[in-house]
Amino acid sequence: MSYKNALHRIVIALGGNALGKTPKEQEEKVAIASKALVNLIAQGNEIIICHGNGPQVGMINLAFEEASKENDKIVPFELPECTAMSQGYIGYHLQKGIKKELLNQGMPWHVATVITQIGVDKEDEAFKNPTKPIGSYYTKEEAEKLMAENEGLVIKDDAGRGYRRMVPSPKPKVIVEKDSIVNMLDNEFIVIACGGGGVPVVEDENGDYVGVPAVIDKDFASAKLAEVVDADFLFILTAVDRVSINWGKPNQEDLDSISVEEAEKYCAEGHFAPGSMLPKVQAAIDFVKSGEGRRAVIASLEKAPLVIKGESGTIIHN
Amino acid sequence: MSYKNALHRIVIALGGNALGKTPKEQEEKVAIASKALVNLIAQGNEIIICHGNGPQVGMINLAFEEASKENDKIVPFELPECTAMSQGYIGYHLQKGIKKELLNQGMPWHVATVITQIGVDKEDEAFKNPTKPIGSYYTKEEAEKLMAENEGLVIKDDAGRGYRRMVPSPKPKVIVEKDSIVNMLDNEFIVIACGGGGVPVVEDENGDYVGVPAVIDKDFASAKLAEVVDADFLFILTAVDRVSINWGKPNQEDLDSISVEEAEKYCAEGHFAPGSMLPKVQAAIDFVKSGEGRRAVIASLEKAPLVIKGESGTIIHN
Repeated sequence: MSYKNALHRIVIALGGNALGKTPKEQEEKVAIASKALVNLIAQGNEIIICHGNGPQVGMINLAFEEASKENDKIVPFELPECTAMSQGYIGYHLQKGIKKELLNQGMPWHVATVITQIGVDKEDEAFKNPTKPIGSYYTKEEAEKLMAENEGLVIKDDAGRGYRRMVPSPKPKVIVEKDSIVNMLDNEFIVIACGGGGVPVVEDENGDYVGVPAVIDKDFASAKLAEVVDADFLFILTAVDRVSINWGKPNQEDLDSISVEEAEKYCAEGHFAPGSMLPKVQAAIDFVKSGEGRRAVIASLEKAPLVIKGESGTIIHN
Repeated sequence: MSYKNALHRIVIALGGNALGKTPKEQEEKVAIASKALVNLIAQGNEIIICHGNGPQVGMINLAFEEASKENDKIVPFELPECTAMSQGYIGYHLQKGIKKELLNQGMPWHVATVITQIGVDKEDEAFKNPTKPIGSYYTKEEAEKLMAENEGLVIKDDAGRGYRRMVPSPKPKVIVEKDSIVNMLDNEFIVIACGGGGVPVVEDENGDYVGVPAVIDKDFASAKLAEVVDADFLFILTAVDRVSINWGKPNQEDLDSISVEEAEKYCAEGHFAPGSMLPKVQAAIDFVKSGEGRRAVIASLEKAPLVIKGESGTIIHN
C-alpha cells in the first residue's frame, strides 16, 4: 500500500472543542480521534489534518495575561504567538496519538506537524467586527467585569452557550508554508498543518509578513488548504452525524447529500447557527466551488470512516 | 544555486538565551540572527536550525502554573507540552525572520518548523539528578520560598548567575521525526527542528512514546540531529567568539582549532563551566567522534559567516 496510489486525498478539519480542555483530556480525545483517522488511511486514503484551537488558544492567551499581572517576569502574549504555541501543543499530541495507532495497526506512515502562517487581507471587513469566540465561557456578570477591566476586550454571547471573548476572523488568502506541506504530502507523510486556522499574518509595506491579533476559522483554513493541495475531499468533522435543516424543530430533516445550490439556499434561509454550523457549510461550499470533482463532507469524528461508504455524514457536491 | 550542490550541510545550535525574554525582544533578536544564518546560505551552505528554549519554556511553564492558581479555567502544563509550545512559538518567529531575510537577499528557499519529539532512555541517570536550568532567575530567598510552596520543585544556583528551576536533562537517543526532517532537507527546505532539545519522550511497555518532565540540552540534541542528517558541520552558536582555556585568568587562551583529544583533556581539567561551555564542548566532541570528516564549531552568532573562512570560532576536529 502506498500513498502514491491513494484512493482519495482528504483534508480533515478537526474541531478544537473535540480536543478537550486540558492536556490530559486532549490526550484521551486524541486517542479516540486517531482511531477514526487511521481507519481512513486503512481504507486507502491519504489524509492531511487541520485542527481547531478555540478553547486552547483562549486558555494560552489568558494564562499569560493573568500570570503577567502577578509576576513581572511573565509578559502577555499576542494571539499570533498563542496560535503558534497551540499548533505546537496540539500537533505534538496528534503526532504521538496517530503514530501510536499506526503502530497498533502495523502501518508504516510517518506523521509531522508543520507550523503554518496564513496570509489574510489587512482590509478584511472582519477586523472591524470581531466575531470569533475563543477561550473560556463566562457568565454575563463575569463578562461585563472583564470588559470593564481590559480596554479593547470584546466578550459576547456565543450562540447561547455562554459569554466568550470575540476576536476578528478574517478569511484565509495564502498558506505561507504551502510548499513545505505539499512536499511532505508528495513524499507520503501524514501532515498536520494550518492548526487553529494558521497563524494570521498580513503583508507590511515591504511585502514581509507580520502577525495580527485575529483567529482564522479552521474550517475556512481547511477549505483553503484542501484547495491548495488539490484534495478530492474536505471532511469537516464535528459533534453531529449530519447537517440538519429545521434543526431542533418537529420537521427537522437530516441531510445525506446536497448540491452547492441547495446548501447556499439553506444558508440564506437561516437554517444554520452563525459561529457553529454556518461557517462549516460555507467552508464546504467554498471548497466544492473551487474545482471540478471536489466534494465536502460534514460528519461526526467517530463515523468518519463510514462516510466514503455513504453510510454517514452530509455530502456537499457540485 | 541549489542545495543539491551545497558546499556543506550545517546543523546550527542557536541558544535560547540569544532569543530574548519577550515576543518583542525575540522578534528583534531573530532579525539579527536571520542575517547571520542567511549569510551562511549565501556562502553556498545548507542549514538546519535547532534552537534552545531555556528562558521561554520556563516562562511558559510558570505562566500556566501561576495563572492556574488564580483561575480555575486554567490548568498547569507539564514540560513536554510546554516544550512543544515553545517549538511553535520560536519556530514561527524564526520562519518569519529567516523568510524576510531570504526575500531581502532575493533567495528562493522555503523555511518550515517540524514539531519534534526526541526519545530518551528512561533509565538515564539524569532523572535522579536534575541539573538543567529553565525559566526566570530568582534570589536565594525567592528560591527557598518557592521550593517550600511547591513539592518536588528544585531551584539551585545556576553557575553563579542566580537561582533557577532545575529539571532532569537526559541524553537524546532517537529523533522521532527524523524521516520528516531528512525528507524536507533532501527537498531543499530550510528546516527548524528539535527546538528546545526536542519534546522528551520515553517508550512505555507497549513501545509507544510518552512525554516526560525533562528538558534535553539543545547542544546534545543538535549533535544527535547533525549525526542523523549526516551533516559536515555542527555550529554551536553562543555569546563568545571562541572557546577559551583558563577563562578570566591572566593566562586565558582563546582557541581557534583543537583536536577531539585536546578538547577531552580540557574538559577533564575543568576549564569549562558545567551548564554553560562544558555541554557545548561535550556535544561538539560527540558529533566529531560520530563519523569521519565531521567537524564542530563553537562561535558567536554574529561571526558565524566568518567561520568557514577560518576567521572566527573554535573548530573541533578529528
